[in-house]
Amino acid sequence: MTTSNTMLAALTEIVGAQNIISEPNQMASYVEEPRRLYNILPSLIVTPTCVEDVQKIMRWAHANNVSVVPQGGNTGLVGGQVSMDSQEIILSLKKLKAVRDVDPATNVMIVEAGTTVLEAQEIAENENRLFPLSLGSEGSCQIGGILSTNAGGTAVLAYGNSRDLCMGVEAVLADGSLYNGLSKLRKDNTGYDLKDLLVGAEGTLGIITAASLKMFPRPTTFETALLNIEDPAAGVKVLEMVRRKSGNKVTSFEILPTLGIDLQLKHGLAERDPRSGSSPWHILVEFSLFDGEDAGALTDTLEALFEEGLISDATLCNSLADRKMMWLMRENFAECQTREADGIKHDISVPVRDIPELIERCDKAAEKAVPGIRTFAFGHMGDGNIHYDFLAPIGMPKGEIRTHANAVHEAIYEIVDDLNGSISAEHGIGQMKAPLLQQKKDPVALNMMYAIKNALDPKGILNPGKVLVKRN
Amino acid sequence: MTTSNTMLAALTEIVGAQNIISEPNQMASYVEEPRRLYNILPSLIVTPTCVEDVQKIMRWAHANNVSVVPQGGNTGLVGGQVSMDSQEIILSLKKLKAVRDVDPATNVMIVEAGTTVLEAQEIAENENRLFPLSLGSEGSCQIGGILSTNAGGTAVLAYGNSRDLCMGVEAVLADGSLYNGLSKLRKDNTGYDLKDLLVGAEGTLGIITAASLKMFPRPTTFETALLNIEDPAAGVKVLEMVRRKSGNKVTSFEILPTLGIDLQLKHGLAERDPRSGSSPWHILVEFSLFDGEDAGALTDTLEALFEEGLISDATLCNSLADRKMMWLMRENFAECQTREADGIKHDISVPVRDIPELIERCDKAAEKAVPGIRTFAFGHMGDGNIHYDFLAPIGMPKGEIRTHANAVHEAIYEIVDDLNGSISAEHGIGQMKAPLLQQKKDPVALNMMYAIKNALDPKGILNPGKVLVKRN
Repeated sequence: MTTSNTMLAALTEIVGAQNIISEPNQMASYVEEPRRLYNILPSLIVTPTCVEDVQKIMRWAHANNVSVVPQGGNTGLVGGQVSMDSQEIILSLKKLKAVRDVDPATNVMIVEAGTTVLEAQEIAENENRLFPLSLGSEGSCQIGGILSTNAGGTAVLAYGNSRDLCMGVEAVLADGSLYNGLSKLRKDNTGYDLKDLLVGAEGTLGIITAASLKMFPRPTTFETALLNIEDPAAGVKVLEMVRRKSGNKVTSFEILPTLGIDLQLKHGLAERDPRSGSSPWHILVEFSLFDGEDAGALTDTLEALFEEGLISDATLCNSLADRKMMWLMRENFAECQTREADGIKHDISVPVRDIPELIERCDKAAEKAVPGIRTFAFGHMGDGNIHYDFLAPIGMPKGEIRTHANAVHEAIYEIVDDLNGSISAEHGIGQMKAPLLQQKKDPVALNMMYAIKNALDPKGILNPGKVLVKRN
Repeated sequence: MTTSNTMLAALTEIVGAQNIISEPNQMASYVEEPRRLYNILPSLIVTPTCVEDVQKIMRWAHANNVSVVPQGGNTGLVGGQVSMDSQEIILSLKKLKAVRDVDPATNVMIVEAGTTVLEAQEIAENENRLFPLSLGSEGSCQIGGILSTNAGGTAVLAYGNSRDLCMGVEAVLADGSLYNGLSKLRKDNTGYDLKDLLVGAEGTLGIITAASLKMFPRPTTFETALLNIEDPAAGVKVLEMVRRKSGNKVTSFEILPTLGIDLQLKHGLAERDPRSGSSPWHILVEFSLFDGEDAGALTDTLEALFEEGLISDATLCNSLADRKMMWLMRENFAECQTREADGIKHDISVPVRDIPELIERCDKAAEKAVPGIRTFAFGHMGDGNIHYDFLAPIGMPKGEIRTHANAVHEAIYEIVDDLNGSISAEHGIGQMKAPLLQQKKDPVALNMMYAIKNALDPKGILNPGKVLVKRN
């Protein structure tokens, strides 16, 4: 066992005292994660400023059997970026900020792991390009983190998730060696797909230090509307028609229960009500148009949807300010829950076709487990990904809903299983869902994962206990 | 060592005599590959009719240390699908043809490995959907094979390569266990990306037996044109402008030397000359339009390209028959070379920006190695992927060019290296490029690949010697 003093001395030697935090009272921003569920402090936090130092840290950790928890913007929702054991160190990538290459002709940028998503968006914008990843935490989440967790967001329907936006990565492996896969190639069939293995591995197979990211032509116009639909089944039909009529123009397709807008108005999160008329469910749909394309594509599509009786009303955004307000409303779907009541959350996906059945069955099952529980299912319908949250019944004493959490989880995950869905569509596994994964994942797939983990990190020092629980 | 008699008896017991070929004179269609470069016969060929039998074969092979070469449509160009050792067996997936699920609302089909690409296209068409993979051998190449090699084709620019078109696979592993990853989920962050590890592994990590494939809305109109450009540098600018002005409409962007059209006319492969005016290079560009979109998008873009002086002339296809002829001309870019002369071939990629430099440098290097050698570089410019072929100089005796092959390969691959390109953009590694991969690939990446191979196939019985040369 390495004592904290020898650890501190060794790491100070590598990165200098200014890049180490060993005082617990200075650790808050690294250890308090968004859901405040985990609170084990690491031995220390190290914030290297270059890739070579990340390699040196890993060489030292490997030689001394010290476990390392890589961390990006600390916005993860499943505890993947914080310690499970006080002997561990947290390795923050936040100071790796270099922009190594911007190549608009190839539509690629190469940035280091600590670059925030917002900064990546701005680099693309400066070249009249688009980096399409967009999610609530984009101002603070970092490229290394979003790739390690394969984050999704609101433009996955058109552009794919983080994995699809990445052409290659550079990563420091468990023994400190450097994998250089910073490809700018759209096609490269020279062996196993190591990039996609490292992406989504939550730092358990290597520490992503830089990435080649795709850029896209920048849309010149967005057409955005909030549609009124009767139920999720209508949503599936609307999606089909929108995709068929718009070609590749539709870039976002989010389903929203009207309750979420009610709560935003109630808690002062929205200036005004964006809805026209009333309906139990809404679709937030956005088209992206380019230079040579005529405006009005969304209006044409809405007319067709009205004619088919698939939507009862719609609010079309008439200005950029309108659009901004609409997307702020979408983002506040998390915050309005927090202000209203305690809740129970799930991040699940099913085949798009099965969303109506999912919602019908889950609502019934939750009501059976906790009479009066309030369904709050919303999210990326175009991708089959629902943030299936529940709010405590009106009047239930604070905290009590937590005592029902396991019963509700079990009921929901059983239905997800039955529909061949996923227990984690975009948030990953982290420490929160690692035990659940053991129950739910195909045992052959689990064996393959353990075999790969053992092959690439035989000492088990890279983010141990995340994704895969330790096997003896 | 298992003798061929005990092998025959054991496998006959599993699949029946009607699914085994042990007579060398009946093996031709399985062992003669397109380039006729490899001619080692396997012990026998087995053609199981169901996944369970594939599992039984692998359990037997695993117990008896027999190596297995999985094979699809036998259209691979790097010898990945044929034997390297006469003790091996070839396992053909051609009889696994079940269509397990077609779900147009989710835009997914699940088909078994032996389904041809053409059949998959037809399944999608019957649902008014598109399965966009398109390549010359689509009538015979099979889903298992195109996924194992991550095949590309002419629509990669818009839809991605085979990997991107696949949501999940089912595969039989080295020990006969069955990995079930037939997901219909667009988002699923539950552990390592095993799908993408199996895709592109050329049958060395598992045998893909079925796959979930994405379908897309079916375009209602195609707009296709052959553009005249002065040089590849103009091609890069044309690509940039086309993408900016057309949004996501451009689905193919192929660069073609005018020599290839000359040769097709000379050898009776083309009915008539599709060119307007003359220029050394052409771009074959195609837009896909949908239901609600106005015709004429390509014409508008061509006008803008003329105004900028980026193209000197263009032939616009005015009918489906015109379009068909144009694509036939594109497909004949391989055949016209075969008829003209012996050649030396490469399948390489570089960042799109660097294509002009690639072509300039490679032409000079090849001319230096073989004065009078004829450059024949063509292909998927939008993806940075050039099929960089050379024809023997006019008048060179048949066969002589082969004596220069190594010198030309070396010169070309050195330039590719220098431009951070790939030595195999879409054809894979197989047996042909396995030794080259050892020289060119990042050693850390190679080590990771060997570690993964050893973890998933410790006995080394799955397609040994392909992708990775055997290490002692």
